[in-house]
Amino acid sequence: MNIQIGRGKSARRAYGIDEIALVPGGKTLDPSLADTHWSIGNIHREIPIIASAMDGVVDVNMAVLLSELGALGVINLDGIQTRYEDTTPILDKIASVGKDEFVSLMQKIYAEPVKLELIERRIKEIKARGAIAAASSTPINAEKYGFLAAQAGCDLFFVQSTVVSTTHLAPEGYSSLNLAEFCAKMPIPVILGNCVTYEVTLELLQTGAAAILVGIGPGAACTSRGVLGVGIPQATAVADCAAARNDFYIQTGKYIPIIADGGLITGGDICKAIACGADGVMIGSPLARAAEAPGRGFHWGMATPSPVLPRGTRIKVGTTGSIAQILRGPAGLDDGTHNLLGALKTSMGTLGASTIQEMQQVEVVIAPSLLTEGKVYQKAQQLGMGK
Amino acid sequence: MNIQIGRGKSARRAYGIDEIALVPGGKTLDPSLADTHWSIGNIHREIPIIASAMDGVVDVNMAVLLSELGALGVINLDGIQTRYEDTTPILDKIASVGKDEFVSLMQKIYAEPVKLELIERRIKEIKARGAIAAASSTPINAEKYGFLAAQAGCDLFFVQSTVVSTTHLAPEGYSSLNLAEFCAKMPIPVILGNCVTYEVTLELLQTGAAAILVGIGPGAACTSRGVLGVGIPQATAVADCAAARNDFYIQTGKYIPIIADGGLITGGDICKAIACGADGVMIGSPLARAAEAPGRGFHWGMATPSPVLPRGTRIKVGTTGSIAQILRGPAGLDDGTHNLLGALKTSMGTLGASTIQEMQQVEVVIAPSLLTEGKVYQKAQQLGMGK
Amino acid sequence: MNIQIGRGKSARRAYGIDEIALVPGGKTLDPSLADTHWSIGNIHREIPIIASAMDGVVDVNMAVLLSELGALGVINLDGIQTRYEDTTPILDKIASVGKDEFVSLMQKIYAEPVKLELIERRIKEIKARGAIAAASSTPINAEKYGFLAAQAGCDLFFVQSTVVSTTHLAPEGYSSLNLAEFCAKMPIPVILGNCVTYEVTLELLQTGAAAILVGIGPGAACTSRGVLGVGIPQATAVADCAAARNDFYIQTGKYIPIIADGGLITGGDICKAIACGADGVMIGSPLARAAEAPGRGFHWGMATPSPVLPRGTRIKVGTTGSIAQILRGPAGLDDGTHNLLGALKTSMGTLGASTIQEMQQVEVVIAPSLLTEGKVYQKAQQLGMGK
Amino acid sequence: MNIQIGRGKSARRAYGIDEIALVPGGKTLDPSLADTHWSIGNIHREIPIIASAMDGVVDVNMAVLLSELGALGVINLDGIQTRYEDTTPILDKIASVGKDEFVSLMQKIYAEPVKLELIERRIKEIKARGAIAAASSTPINAEKYGFLAAQAGCDLFFVQSTVVSTTHLAPEGYSSLNLAEFCAKMPIPVILGNCVTYEVTLELLQTGAAAILVGIGPGAACTSRGVLGVGIPQATAVADCAAARNDFYIQTGKYIPIIADGGLITGGDICKAIACGADGVMIGSPLARAAEAPGRGFHWGMATPSPVLPRGTRIKVGTTGSIAQILRGPAGLDDGTHNLLGALKTSMGTLGASTIQEMQQVEVVIAPSLLTEGKVYQKAQQLGMGK
Repeated sequence: MNIQIGRGKSARRAYGIDEIALVPGGKTLDPSLADTHWSIGNIHREIPIIASAMDGVVDVNMAVLLSELGALGVINLDGIQTRYEDTTPILDKIASVGKDEFVSLMQKIYAEPVKLELIERRIKEIKARGAIAAASSTPINAEKYGFLAAQAGCDLFFVQSTVVSTTHLAPEGYSSLNLAEFCAKMPIPVILGNCVTYEVTLELLQTGAAAILVGIGPGAACTSRGVLGVGIPQATAVADCAAARNDFYIQTGKYIPIIADGGLITGGDICKAIACGADGVMIGSPLARAAEAPGRGFHWGMATPSPVLPRGTRIKVGTTGSIAQILRGPAGLDDGTHNLLGALKTSMGTLGASTIQEMQQVEVVIAPSLLTEGKVYQKAQQLGMGK
Repeated sequence: MNIQIGRGKSARRAYGIDEIALVPGGKTLDPSLADTHWSIGNIHREIPIIASAMDGVVDVNMAVLLSELGALGVINLDGIQTRYEDTTPILDKIASVGKDEFVSLMQKIYAEPVKLELIERRIKEIKARGAIAAASSTPINAEKYGFLAAQAGCDLFFVQSTVVSTTHLAPEGYSSLNLAEFCAKMPIPVILGNCVTYEVTLELLQTGAAAILVGIGPGAACTSRGVLGVGIPQATAVADCAAARNDFYIQTGKYIPIIADGGLITGGDICKAIACGADGVMIGSPLARAAEAPGRGFHWGMATPSPVLPRGTRIKVGTTGSIAQILRGPAGLDDGTHNLLGALKTSMGTLGASTIQEMQQVEVVIAPSLLTEGKVYQKAQQLGMGK
Repeated sequence: MNIQIGRGKSARRAYGIDEIALVPGGKTLDPSLADTHWSIGNIHREIPIIASAMDGVVDVNMAVLLSELGALGVINLDGIQTRYEDTTPILDKIASVGKDEFVSLMQKIYAEPVKLELIERRIKEIKARGAIAAASSTPINAEKYGFLAAQAGCDLFFVQSTVVSTTHLAPEGYSSLNLAEFCAKMPIPVILGNCVTYEVTLELLQTGAAAILVGIGPGAACTSRGVLGVGIPQATAVADCAAARNDFYIQTGKYIPIIADGGLITGGDICKAIACGADGVMIGSPLARAAEAPGRGFHWGMATPSPVLPRGTRIKVGTTGSIAQILRGPAGLDDGTHNLLGALKTSMGTLGASTIQEMQQVEVVIAPSLLTEGKVYQKAQQLGMGK
Repeated sequence: MNIQIGRGKSARRAYGIDEIALVPGGKTLDPSLADTHWSIGNIHREIPIIASAMDGVVDVNMAVLLSELGALGVINLDGIQTRYEDTTPILDKIASVGKDEFVSLMQKIYAEPVKLELIERRIKEIKARGAIAAASSTPINAEKYGFLAAQAGCDLFFVQSTVVSTTHLAPEGYSSLNLAEFCAKMPIPVILGNCVTYEVTLELLQTGAAAILVGIGPGAACTSRGVLGVGIPQATAVADCAAARNDFYIQTGKYIPIIADGGLITGGDICKAIACGADGVMIGSPLARAAEAPGRGFHWGMATPSPVLPRGTRIKVGTTGSIAQILRGPAGLDDGTHNLLGALKTSMGTLGASTIQEMQQVEVVIAPSLLTEGKVYQKAQQLGMGK
């Protein structure tokens, strides 16, 4: 399948979620019969959606609501919640600042150090309300924050960076996080990411990860592809990594879920990611539009506040309804961003898939979105380029 | 023809109507010699165009006018016409409401129950004016409405849902419509849809359907692809389903027409759908622009009023002329949306096709519309993105 | 090279001029050494550019200027020049009318009958000023106008319709133009078009045509693809028809030029059409921008005034300079629409082609314009979609 | 890999930088460990970025600053700096003139002759401040300016035209520059360009060039593709020419760098050009945005002032920060146009490449930018087409 870019370079064609569509077969079922349950670590959930560990998306209250609704939210231990006791004035400021001052404001806000006692407190606040607590950190802080979070009652721990590898070369005097050792020592399940290839997924699975996050460069609030040239369209990334999960299952008997993270906006996008092989999805911007989201109608990426190379963008996503409406409906919008569970169940019904595993097997066609006028229109509107 | 999306997933490339163009050969004929007649069930028509069973497109008066002009209009038995005796204030309200209130208004309007006596009355009103009466319902209501409509004098009955299958799994306590039994029992021809594959078309043909509707996800007022991820570009869908029609004809001697439904806007689109193998087309938005259309210049999809997962959009299409002008000219617009019959005849003359069957055989090329500036301009204008 | 659109339909991928680019090789030459001369019939010209027989582009004065500058202009015998003695108020009206009244105005203006004495007079006016006279008509009027034009001193006669074929089926009581007989009887060279395939080109060459016009559907003022679904991207059409010219030359020893007609806007487009195999080009909109053009900054297609199925669009092209500046420079614009001869010579120099025949052999790559930002920007601006 | 455009013409598919993305593998490294050093001639530099010899980008002061920051700037000996002693009023005028007067103003400004004493003076001004001096001229002036520049202390000499070849046919009475003789006679390293093919690169390497510039037609301020039809997407051009460099190295043992020139805007673009095989890049518009750039927020191409066929465009790029911030950060913008060195190091770390040579080997995928919404948005904004 190798295509020659030039004499010195070959490449494979990779496909994005927007380039595919799902094909109904000879069977349909009532949406109420579609079972969307999945498991991550020892946690069972009805909705295969995880809210990204982004400061505009998840705070203590959102984590509790997401948990109550059958989904999951991850709190960012490198973010505002653990840097500031009272985050209200900080989030107000981010929402009110002009475009020109945004990058420097973010660099200043994120210069405030993380407080270990706030890590503990946030986890406990979530657990106190009877919810599932999930937290994330970058690899560099994983050992420092991870054990502390686990002791505070955290249920799942995410170690996330733009790109994760099992072989990281650190500067002299520093040591890299040994992922296998870390997973072994941690008393709670550890989720690792992000990666995009079969090979790296297999290596991460061998470290003992409880789930793998898949996706580099496709997200709305992420400009990795522009800044670094790095990224892989999500349909191909998910299909490749799902193949690693399947092979690992055949070899070991352990079924470890993979989670599509980035670039998914509508219910249709979520359905397509699962059809490419994902067990669940991690989404940011669609949930940042909830009235309860801490971002006040704004959304920004995790690499945004980098002091030297900021590469996320603050996107005004607006507020369109409650988190309950976004996840479980009834939909007040007709553009695929409300009632995500209903959309998944209806899509599964339409495609005759009664479980997530059957949904992973549905037929896919390559069908460029650009040539479907409705889609162009819709995308243009979401980007604010239309009328 | 399988393309690998990733290790775990292969797909076929599907093509949209916008991606193809028709190639003139060595023969031409005068447009007056092009014969566009076709048959559906026992009904013979000069114009192979059916107006969609959409509330903004067909009411009693439009059904009569379409019939008189040589085409056909289908009245939606699950719509406004059968829920309200006087539809005028309802349609006025839909046309006047703002974008933000639209979805909730639609959910409220369509919460009013359908009245069986209105089903009967609408059919009789059409027949009283000497026109062909065609009506549609969703599968769930087909038995309840179908026999009633037939008794009232209905000529053709359409059973239509986003996706139809012969194997539908219903929740316990409910039973699915048995399509073969229904077709056999109904005293009038039954048209079934929508589907997009060779296999399902063949199964539907075996139930005794009088025609098959082809198209999932490509329409302007339909956001199935965004909400559900489901859809297949129309050129491929039509070509696949036409192959099933041909094979069924070879096996049984019965020629059952297939109707391309969705995503067709201009006369050129209609010509291309037929060139891919369609016998006729079902269109909504181009006819919603008629002065006589009930939508008052607006158009919305059939899934729009869903109480939990609305997935149509109200599109302002405007009013550009009479239904006579749109179907038979003379054209007052030069963008391919007036005089659709004239366009079809001129295209057939240009391509040397003297019948619909010859038109199905003309040469097609893949020719991305994006690269033809006129087309980009035209599409952009239709979407309101241009000047 | 056949691609399956669906089970019942295969197609070839056709390429547009915008999708290709020219590749410099190991040789370059000074632009002054590039020889752009060509012959059509017995006429020798320095510039391989013909102005389209469009009413916004060519009148008597433009035909004279084009001839003096080394190019050629064709006067439309079915147009305004032969319907009205004084065209000034007519052309003023076309330029001043609003968008909504345009189609009906055109239908009214072109309802005025053609006067045979005006045909004679226009040709004589051109010849009186010492210029080359070329005129065109549709096939239906070719015999009536052609001999008259020849007698009046016309040098070249174009028989042009959207699609021409050697086998045209006319309604009973009418007879089709026999192209071979017509070419044989006419005392002056006859140019035929338009066509897009190898087979039709070969048939037209066998009728005795002095040149073949290639291009259906790609032009800016032509909406054939939208209205009729008919059209073929120009790079493929030109390459196919050029192959027929070459084979005809091998068989007969006669070298008959083919002319790319439609969709060419910039100097680069002209260079690319020649690189695909054209001997010359016919262009409309770039010349409609001349101060001397009759269109007063507007341009419209030949099918525009159809009383039943208008399918051209009036495009505001503006006035950017003199016809001398557009053809021979110096350029006052940097977007490729001024100094077309200079652009061709510079391109030939850059590519090391010293004659049109060598230019037809240069290397071409497929290089989607969409991915070159400058091109997107430029095209968007030309279409009025940018800032 | 040949694709048939039509019967008479085949072509290869060429790929642009926007169509590819880089794939992280199983190894990562800390950005501080990424070594970006490279050599050109006998000059060693930390940053593989050269500022284009464009009048809006490089003057004496910018050349000095670029040198101090670890990069390189080339002064244009055919430009404003050598035509005018005091360039301030000239550059002010260019920045203040309206769009309509721009082309004629440029033609007038560049009609002023180049002064040999200004060539000498500019080089000496750069050297006096302890910086590396690099200068460029067109082939026609190379002998006249080159030896003079070398005597004045110039370190590197660029001979640049849109397209360079070793076999140039000049008009009678003129002689072409013999590139091999010129390289041999020049006391300082000579860099040649631009070219886009394997064959021409190999021929230029055999002349003794110290580096090769690769890129025709892809630049933002260059409209070669529109005006001349000439151009090749940059990813393919770089990969082809890099293959020639590798083969030349195998044959001769001499490693001569190739420099990707044109069409690169963001840090990601630079990373991708290197991943296709480039040793360094030459960029214009991203550096024209420096507060210290002579263009005052404007940027224009080298072919812009052509008296007969201008084909550059003046683009308003704005001023976004200091040249130090653009090259070495910290970034004040999050769109990939600040801290280009940081972006390169971070990308190399992400991809596990510790040297430029390793970066040339990273995995590439074909991943159309159009399908990544963030990219569409970003590109649309850069082109001023978005909100």
